[in-house]
Amino acid sequence: MGVNLKHSGKEGMALAEVKGFTLWFTGLSGAGKSTLAGMVAENLRQQGRRVEVLDGDEVRQNLSQGLGFSRADRDANIQRIGYVAKLLSRNGVVAITAAISPYRDTREHVRAQIPDFVEVYVHCPLEVCAARDVKGLYQKAMAGEIGQFTGVSDPYEEPLAPEVVVATHRETPTESLAKIMDKLYNLGYVSAP
Amino acid sequence: MGVNLKHSGKEGMALAEVKGFTLWFTGLSGAGKSTLAGMVAENLRQQGRRVEVLDGDEVRQNLSQGLGFSRADRDANIQRIGYVAKLLSRNGVVAITAAISPYRDTREHVRAQIPDFVEVYVHCPLEVCAARDVKGLYQKAMAGEIGQFTGVSDPYEEPLAPEVVVATHRETPTESLAKIMDKLYNLGYVSAP
Repeated sequence: MGVNLKHSGKEGMALAEVKGFTLWFTGLSGAGKSTLAGMVAENLRQQGRRVEVLDGDEVRQNLSQGLGFSRADRDANIQRIGYVAKLLSRNGVVAITAAISPYRDTREHVRAQIPDFVEVYVHCPLEVCAARDVKGLYQKAMAGEIGQFTGVSDPYEEPLAPEVVVATHRETPTESLAKIMDKLYNLGYVSAP
Repeated sequence: MGVNLKHSGKEGMALAEVKGFTLWFTGLSGAGKSTLAGMVAENLRQQGRRVEVLDGDEVRQNLSQGLGFSRADRDANIQRIGYVAKLLSRNGVVAITAAISPYRDTREHVRAQIPDFVEVYVHCPLEVCAARDVKGLYQKAMAGEIGQFTGVSDPYEEPLAPEVVVATHRETPTESLAKIMDKLYNLGYVSAP
């Protein structure tokens, strides 16, 4: 389970073989992906795990400058996040991604490349996300000031078989976190729920 | 040195705190970057380290499709490799990069973002690289069939103060490898030279 100590000989070195995985959040803007990603990250770090959160905005800044929000550009961005998540998780790190990742096919394509992949659908009705409007983007999108905005003027394709579904309009963040941690425990990725 | 075992309590888990770092190769096409990157990677894996080689061509494919070889595009590609190397190395992984990375300023910019950064200049005169012509690219570049080719029609700026210099026209690969491993040992990044 999770950790397997291997001693590598004369230097007395020990290598902890911790199994990395990718925790892939998907959902509308404002659904709560980044909040939950941060909470899971904190929890796992307290368990002594190495964790990297690949947040949508930060990753776009670092890997996808110049790309826009067409289907092709969104797909390229998601593929890049998937590539980085793959590199991290195959090296024992927990890679947590928190990009909208609206297209089902694209998420499945990423899943196919990452052996240890856990998809979390952060479900929240559009009206609730728009009412929260954390970044003030829904108001602009509904006024037509932002084009290609997921849920308003661009599609969001719900996952058909995600490992976890959380419903942030009727669960507290702590309840959603517990669902995710339970699943990670049941899948054998963490030693404590 | 390198490894520091920390016990995290009741589950009896142990986390090996292995210090990651970035080993950044730079040099002309055909100088021997990928060969040496592979040799160092093999050596470090035998020491039980987690290692990821970020080779120029593969990374371009995964992170920089659509970018060309203008200064701006090369810089964007190198920044992306630097970002991924940073994420890996701060999570205990040895990130080894093997892209030409011809511009000094850009390499220094990457160095400034990665606390544990070791630059290896793979020196080899242009004539020798062109004579080797591993990928058949020099012939095409010299015939004008490829534009913006480093060393032929595009600049290569030598590092002024790299941690290691290897000279592949007058050292065997094993000698170059030994220089690199000695430096990593002296810097405290590996437990055996």
